[in-house]
Amino acid sequence: MLKKIVFLSLLTLTYAASTAQTKTTPIYLDDSKPVAERVKDALSRMTLEEKVGMLHAQSKFSSAGVPRLGIPEFWTTDGPHGVRAEVKWDEWDQAGWTNDSIVAYPALTALSATWNKKMSWNYGKALGEEARYRKKDILLGPGVNIYRTPLNGRNFEYMGEDPFLTSKMVVPYIQGVQSNGVATSVKHYALNNQEMFRHTSNVKVDDRALYELYLPPFKAAVTEGDSWTIMGAYDMYKGQYASQNQYLLNDILKGEWNYKGVVVSDWGAVNNTEQAIKNGLDLEFGSWTNGLSAGTKNAYDNYYLAQPYLDLIKSGKVGTKELDDKVTRLLNLAYKTTMNKNKPFGNVASEDHRAVAKQVGEEGIVLLKNQNNVLPINLTKVKTIAVIGENAIKMMTVGGGSSSLKAKYETLPLEGIKSRFGKEAEVSYARGYVGDPGGEYNGVKSGQDLKDDRSADVILNEAVELAKRSDFVIFVGGLNKADHQDAEGVDRTSYGLPYNQDNVIAALAKANKNLAVVLVSGNAVAMPWIKDVPAIVESWYLGSEAGNSLASVLAGDANPSGKLPFTFPVKLEDNSAHQLGEYPGNKEELAAGKGKDQKNPINITYNEGIFVGYRWHDTKKIKPLFSFGHGLSYTTFEIGKAKADKTTIGQDDKITFTFTVKNTGKKAGAEVAQLYISDLKSSLPRPTKELKGFEKVFLNPGEEKEVSITVDKAALSFFDADKHAWVAEPGDFEALIGNSSDNIKTKVKFTLK
Amino acid sequence: MLKKIVFLSLLTLTYAASTAQTKTTPIYLDDSKPVAERVKDALSRMTLEEKVGMLHAQSKFSSAGVPRLGIPEFWTTDGPHGVRAEVKWDEWDQAGWTNDSIVAYPALTALSATWNKKMSWNYGKALGEEARYRKKDILLGPGVNIYRTPLNGRNFEYMGEDPFLTSKMVVPYIQGVQSNGVATSVKHYALNNQEMFRHTSNVKVDDRALYELYLPPFKAAVTEGDSWTIMGAYDMYKGQYASQNQYLLNDILKGEWNYKGVVVSDWGAVNNTEQAIKNGLDLEFGSWTNGLSAGTKNAYDNYYLAQPYLDLIKSGKVGTKELDDKVTRLLNLAYKTTMNKNKPFGNVASEDHRAVAKQVGEEGIVLLKNQNNVLPINLTKVKTIAVIGENAIKMMTVGGGSSSLKAKYETLPLEGIKSRFGKEAEVSYARGYVGDPGGEYNGVKSGQDLKDDRSADVILNEAVELAKRSDFVIFVGGLNKADHQDAEGVDRTSYGLPYNQDNVIAALAKANKNLAVVLVSGNAVAMPWIKDVPAIVESWYLGSEAGNSLASVLAGDANPSGKLPFTFPVKLEDNSAHQLGEYPGNKEELAAGKGKDQKNPINITYNEGIFVGYRWHDTKKIKPLFSFGHGLSYTTFEIGKAKADKTTIGQDDKITFTFTVKNTGKKAGAEVAQLYISDLKSSLPRPTKELKGFEKVFLNPGEEKEVSITVDKAALSFFDADKHAWVAEPGDFEALIGNSSDNIKTKVKFTLK
Repeated sequence: MLKKIVFLSLLTLTYAASTAQTKTTPIYLDDSKPVAERVKDALSRMTLEEKVGMLHAQSKFSSAGVPRLGIPEFWTTDGPHGVRAEVKWDEWDQAGWTNDSIVAYPALTALSATWNKKMSWNYGKALGEEARYRKKDILLGPGVNIYRTPLNGRNFEYMGEDPFLTSKMVVPYIQGVQSNGVATSVKHYALNNQEMFRHTSNVKVDDRALYELYLPPFKAAVTEGDSWTIMGAYDMYKGQYASQNQYLLNDILKGEWNYKGVVVSDWGAVNNTEQAIKNGLDLEFGSWTNGLSAGTKNAYDNYYLAQPYLDLIKSGKVGTKELDDKVTRLLNLAYKTTMNKNKPFGNVASEDHRAVAKQVGEEGIVLLKNQNNVLPINLTKVKTIAVIGENAIKMMTVGGGSSSLKAKYETLPLEGIKSRFGKEAEVSYARGYVGDPGGEYNGVKSGQDLKDDRSADVILNEAVELAKRSDFVIFVGGLNKADHQDAEGVDRTSYGLPYNQDNVIAALAKANKNLAVVLVSGNAVAMPWIKDVPAIVESWYLGSEAGNSLASVLAGDANPSGKLPFTFPVKLEDNSAHQLGEYPGNKEELAAGKGKDQKNPINITYNEGIFVGYRWHDTKKIKPLFSFGHGLSYTTFEIGKAKADKTTIGQDDKITFTFTVKNTGKKAGAEVAQLYISDLKSSLPRPTKELKGFEKVFLNPGEEKEVSITVDKAALSFFDADKHAWVAEPGDFEALIGNSSDNIKTKVKFTLK
Repeated sequence: MLKKIVFLSLLTLTYAASTAQTKTTPIYLDDSKPVAERVKDALSRMTLEEKVGMLHAQSKFSSAGVPRLGIPEFWTTDGPHGVRAEVKWDEWDQAGWTNDSIVAYPALTALSATWNKKMSWNYGKALGEEARYRKKDILLGPGVNIYRTPLNGRNFEYMGEDPFLTSKMVVPYIQGVQSNGVATSVKHYALNNQEMFRHTSNVKVDDRALYELYLPPFKAAVTEGDSWTIMGAYDMYKGQYASQNQYLLNDILKGEWNYKGVVVSDWGAVNNTEQAIKNGLDLEFGSWTNGLSAGTKNAYDNYYLAQPYLDLIKSGKVGTKELDDKVTRLLNLAYKTTMNKNKPFGNVASEDHRAVAKQVGEEGIVLLKNQNNVLPINLTKVKTIAVIGENAIKMMTVGGGSSSLKAKYETLPLEGIKSRFGKEAEVSYARGYVGDPGGEYNGVKSGQDLKDDRSADVILNEAVELAKRSDFVIFVGGLNKADHQDAEGVDRTSYGLPYNQDNVIAALAKANKNLAVVLVSGNAVAMPWIKDVPAIVESWYLGSEAGNSLASVLAGDANPSGKLPFTFPVKLEDNSAHQLGEYPGNKEELAAGKGKDQKNPINITYNEGIFVGYRWHDTKKIKPLFSFGHGLSYTTFEIGKAKADKTTIGQDDKITFTFTVKNTGKKAGAEVAQLYISDLKSSLPRPTKELKGFEKVFLNPGEEKEVSITVDKAALSFFDADKHAWVAEPGDFEALIGNSSDNIKTKVKFTLK
């Protein structure tokens, strides 16, 4: 036997080529194959242990892939307003990296207040780019829980009280984020409408309110936005925790909506292996461990969807049908994110991103009141500006819970005002009041908290004196990110402004008539001083560009165009949840000490049903402090008479309403035309009107545009709980078009056959 | 003015499409554009600060990208034998992750001992896949420093004494790693041939030895292997530190070899901004900081190629030519690694990887001696096996310096032997001796160190008694990864085996004639007991599969085919560096206390010149203990008479030598045919012979193959320092073909015209 080998020591052999010949690419790694085939192939190669290994966390924010097969890990990150700093493997402390600071974007209330879907896309795209650059695969947001009570500490992370507005605003956000190969995780599904008792409550809500109010944003997020993941909530519904809930996850999400994505638990929301297996959860996070893995084999192996699941399968008590379904969903997600070779590289803090943060802030700020056109500040007259209030110097990107950020920079209101006005006017500052020491989150303080030993009176007097000798006073107050203000895990304890701010504002109003009150908050607040204050601005939590966006609006560089995404009631009792519903839970159970732990959950019944927000105020004719959809401009607009393209429509028809919007003032600006539908006669009680269309129209002075809004049967329907179906009852309807829910300019009647 | 907008609330607008229309992809992100154009475009968009920001570490193992532009960070990792565990951002302690354990591959001495380039490709590919899965972009290896002294504590990380063997073995490793979009960083360039004084010495070597011995592996790595990065060493050459060295980096690497890749400093090898700027360094790592960044702005900004560089540019003292060159190189690297969308996902600990680790181990193990065919162990006769020696139970993947690993598993020799032989024979263990408490690296202990309070005598007696009553004795000893054994940063203190092993082996040899001594080491050791021990196996550091590879060879499942990549001298003084050269440095300077710090460096003159290893032993006729290229098999081979395809060649010709290799024994096996060239008459002194070709031939019993090896002028040349050129002098040469450097089987004379 003689074989010939020729070996040339001169040649560099490239072994890659020969290897490629002998080994073919397995299907699951072959980009040319359909994803379904690749998923099936990957699944067929995985061991039972590898499958179960994918279903739960391996660290605070990551879950395992299949190292043997080269299926990457998933890395998740908070949060809705910016990419969270790196934390240690199994502890919440920051890991001390220096490459993880980012742009903080405005909180979602501010985004929603823009009523501009393009802003939402820009926001999502920019945020997703930062997540991608930071090598994150799943962004834990956006939040779309409906604003039911102004006491909910987490309202600032959500998009307000209206399901239609929230739905329309959330879809482009999701699409923007996901264009980066980063999944969103729309949250918290569902009925997590307050923080108090979030782990220990059972929400009771009628099906009609569930389907008409609380579910639509989630439905839009998954069916229109195609959010690749969704996060289960902490609370219970029908006695099962939301993250392992047969009704919410199997029946509705994966049943009625045919959702093929991944259900992620909120961190620590799982507590039952069997329910987690059978009721639609796919990926378990945060169940416990905090530095515990050191010294033990691996504490994460004890998660509900880890060893206990494996044991059940191996003992034959549970089959593998659910397992393969969960893994199939996770693999599908992998091909969209980690294994998607076409995803971009992302970037952080580019000029574009800073511009997005600033513009969303400018468009989101709501000018609530502007008597005598006190704003914008007229620098031909104003030479001295007094900035008063703690929030002018308080960092708001840190604190408030899991959405706390490590921002590259945060322009505080005082900085923004000084930067914009400082060359033309003298800007002075006085604190006016002293608030909480400030939110602390993961060991990072939220602000430059003064330790001021002087009495409140001295601090207030100093502010009043400054106000008296200034041409213009800007009070910057509101809430903050401390516990029991706007913060995760706890609710507010009252509707009023904290830290005696009402007295400060009242005193300032007496001291100087040229006063603008700027509220930094994610919630409505009481305003007992409203009649004495000429200008009021809701400025939200605006992130890195907060001070610049605010100054831009105060100066008139940006013409305010934000509209409230939720109602400001005069007093807490005017809110339906507080008047009719149970808050923070059933009174008798509360008295009996229920809700203190998971063994003694408390019930919260949403007695107000569908009558939430303006649906309540409108219907019950309770005048709000500021209405849903309200927001002023530095110019004036005229909405012309609306026409419909038909007077009668069939069940499958569409109807288009057309009207003009004209800028009748002297400044370029934008008006949000809002279309509400009113069912003039119905077999069931219905709200006076419901938002079913809107369009933000940008107009130069004198410019007029024609706007058309088309709706179909969906806009006319209510959810009939008995039939478990959406019903549009034949009869007369009215389209109401205006620039806020309490300022309807034109109406058109039509009939559904 | 009337414009028409139609807004359909029914439609989900996909904003991605419209955005794509309005914004074109910038060239640097456009995959369809040539890389050179993309690099130029990226460079043109970067600020001065962003450029300088790319040139230095931001953490222990990462360097910054350009977040604003979406140019990713580089993440590096030790090391040559496996992907290092995650460490904290700015501390060497492990970060406590649980997803960072990997396969430990055999140390590079073992890979080199396979003399099989295919093994090297397999190794590189598998290791690169693990690095890729772990999201690493630059792998800090392989090491190719020439084996000059057996005392060098880091020899185990290198590939032996011969530049040709090292060059041929390193190229496929690099190609294998880089096929994953992971750069190699061939190290330590150059002349880091001992650990003692590595930070405080200046190496003096003549140009001929530099070009003939020390540079060729680096040249092959960058010109043939295309290693995308290269790591500068710690030591000085011509009075400049190697990582900022005009001669090594600018003149030779980037000049003579036209290298376009990235020069990375060894960690902490930089100490002069101006030299770092001008002498060819591109990326600075490890200069200092250890937990220092907390509380300061960012300690990394003070690196030599950070703020100090920026200051020099801004003050006009230094231009930006070097800066743009460095950044261009880094951007080119990015397009091959981080920004290469076609790279695979990698994987960890797949069956393939475990098989590669095992096979490299099996092929790398060298059967040094096998009197009376004591090996393989004949299980028809052997019913009781005594395993003796600490290294049978000592973990070797942890310790030894930066190559220390967090292996998923490490099969210890005793485990491997029990697993292979335990069913057919009774396997017993005795420790025999007690060594160091073991290497500790980054807080992780290297082994299961017994705290044995019994005296050495008791322990030895126990072993001898066990040996006496056993049918076969396997002693597993050698060195370990403790300081002053095989470990980074320090050299060995003597050539002999430590811990009184010589006495243990001598006692065992008396107790039982069926003795195999297995040496686990990365270095040659003295063997005063050699005549009394029938079988000796060099088993190296074999990583995760160590025990299995060893057991496989001891059992004859794998027929040993490894060949020594370096000479084992009888005694230290037989080594040329110790006989002629200066070790650990100039004696007078040593006596004067030089070398203690960087202000008082010590000179080390390589007086032995080109006469290193077998070049020395051959030429000076100093018989080694075991020669370079030596290694036995369980079968026998016959190398037939070689023929050349010509008798005379011109300067541009090639000549091919052809011969047969036949397996004349009864077991399948592999022989490494080695071709050495001897210059029969030369104007300069030359080694008796030099390796210029080899081929590992796998043969079944009775099988014969014809092997052809072709060489050209390069194989006949020496480096003429005066002419600074390679010269092949006309005259007579001889090709010597054998199965080790001291066992030449056939010779062919030829003439160069």
